[in-house]
Amino acid sequence: MHLVVLTGGVGGARFLRGVRAHAHRTGAQVTAIVNTGDDLSVHGLRVCPDLDSVMYALGGAADPERGWGRAGETWTVRDELAGYGAQPDWFSLGDRDLATHLVRTTMLTAGYPLSAVTEALCRRWQPGVRVLPATDDRLETHVVVPGEAGTEAIHFQQWWVRHRGARPAQQFVFVGAESAKPAPGVSEALATADAILLAPSNPVVSIAPILAVPGLREDLTGARAPVVGVSPIIGGAPVRGMADACLAAVDVECSASGVGRMYGARGAGGLLDGWLVDAAADPDADVPGVTVRTVPLWMTDDATTARMVAAALELAQ
Amino acid sequence: MHLVVLTGGVGGARFLRGVRAHAHRTGAQVTAIVNTGDDLSVHGLRVCPDLDSVMYALGGAADPERGWGRAGETWTVRDELAGYGAQPDWFSLGDRDLATHLVRTTMLTAGYPLSAVTEALCRRWQPGVRVLPATDDRLETHVVVPGEAGTEAIHFQQWWVRHRGARPAQQFVFVGAESAKPAPGVSEALATADAILLAPSNPVVSIAPILAVPGLREDLTGARAPVVGVSPIIGGAPVRGMADACLAAVDVECSASGVGRMYGARGAGGLLDGWLVDAAADPDADVPGVTVRTVPLWMTDDATTARMVAAALELAQ
Repeated sequence: MHLVVLTGGVGGARFLRGVRAHAHRTGAQVTAIVNTGDDLSVHGLRVCPDLDSVMYALGGAADPERGWGRAGETWTVRDELAGYGAQPDWFSLGDRDLATHLVRTTMLTAGYPLSAVTEALCRRWQPGVRVLPATDDRLETHVVVPGEAGTEAIHFQQWWVRHRGARPAQQFVFVGAESAKPAPGVSEALATADAILLAPSNPVVSIAPILAVPGLREDLTGARAPVVGVSPIIGGAPVRGMADACLAAVDVECSASGVGRMYGARGAGGLLDGWLVDAAADPDADVPGVTVRTVPLWMTDDATTARMVAAALELAQ
Repeated sequence: MHLVVLTGGVGGARFLRGVRAHAHRTGAQVTAIVNTGDDLSVHGLRVCPDLDSVMYALGGAADPERGWGRAGETWTVRDELAGYGAQPDWFSLGDRDLATHLVRTTMLTAGYPLSAVTEALCRRWQPGVRVLPATDDRLETHVVVPGEAGTEAIHFQQWWVRHRGARPAQQFVFVGAESAKPAPGVSEALATADAILLAPSNPVVSIAPILAVPGLREDLTGARAPVVGVSPIIGGAPVRGMADACLAAVDVECSASGVGRMYGARGAGGLLDGWLVDAAADPDADVPGVTVRTVPLWMTDDATTARMVAAALELAQ
């Protein structure tokens, strides 16, 4: 059994812990295809927030409170950078986390593709799943916001971290997507999957950038495996993050049904065979052409999340 | 009064504190021309140990025990890099120190020359003296050592830090020197100096790389100002560091007289008008053609060092 998960963000990383717990019990193999649209260069270092969230969460090194970055983190370098007045000052790099970016940047500069770098970094974290970036190529999520002269497109992290989503997003653009290729292993993983899961990640800025890689969406819709998504919206609100602001920008209702319909039924040009929504909050969710199943969707711990995964895979059969 | 000091290493940085203390009392201006032959790239970061020693020592931020790096330093990033098995593992970057290298590397990558980067970094440290790298160009000290197939040339830091000078040095080579130019301000500083001091730095690997920049030695010997050197050797041994091993490689006796003769008298194609040696340990030091003065040379504190500087300047008159 080979499970493939499309994922991004902190919620996606947490979901993957449940997938791994389930796979550990059933002997399944897991491949995670991870969003790289959030990646940024800061102080000359290449930072891949979603890949790192997966590595740290599955490596048991993630900060459980903050949800991002390393447990037991310290901030000496950040404070020293502030001492120099170094810009940007709105994206904090922890000391522990920083070593990851140093190793990554050194390897990228030496010519290794991001997928090879990720594999090298994972040798330390032993995530227990295969971690693949969606693409080795540049694909950068920009947010179109009102600007002083009409509109301007700012980096996703600038919108998300610096402005905390306060500037109204009009559109999300995946710069470079048109010439990106799926990273080595991605198309093969989708072709050989026995089930494909869409993690309860932000559909607009975590899953959409993955699907924006030419060929990847076709790999998914053409796969022999069933595709089951897990709703990131429970009772009309995102479990965490700012999916509401993102969905508003693309005119999608912030509801379990709204996101399910956005993904759409595989038979009708969409992605989904099945859609998992929260039993208590969204019992009446409905996506035309898609089998909707209701289960408890709160990822309170790995065992609970693993039960969600089991339900998704049951739905996939 | 304009004092110009050629300097490198921890001893040179300590000497500069005395120069500044003297200048503060007399209203003199100070320019430090700093060795860059020790500079290295490690984990993708550009590290300039001698420039940093000067900045930190004069900025009151140097570790007083270790002699290099920042006071109150922590080592989180280093330990994390070790967790990845990242190489090189023999050159430790402290967390506080690392921010300096991040800012420097970002600016260098953006196209600023090292002299402009140094000026920007000094805005934080307010060293109270003008700090100039000897050159903005690549000039890298290599050490020729016995190798598996004859000899090999390794980076100075590899010899100094990794092997702790244990591999017998046969020669020092300043790679890139032939096409290096003095950094902006260096020639002008030497031309307008009222006195030029050679700090008690390692003559072979701190002062010689500065003088290896084409034109710089001529700027020094052609300057209207007197040139006075301070011996880094007291009683036949270096005050700190491995000057003995370095001097052996260039067949110079490890003594106050030996180093003075290596520099040589300005009238006879050398550099020196005056030479300061330790009164207690080297009362009989002699350098043909050079006025030798004996004073206490141990830099126990800034006030004592300032008295050495005053004696050097007196000798310069």
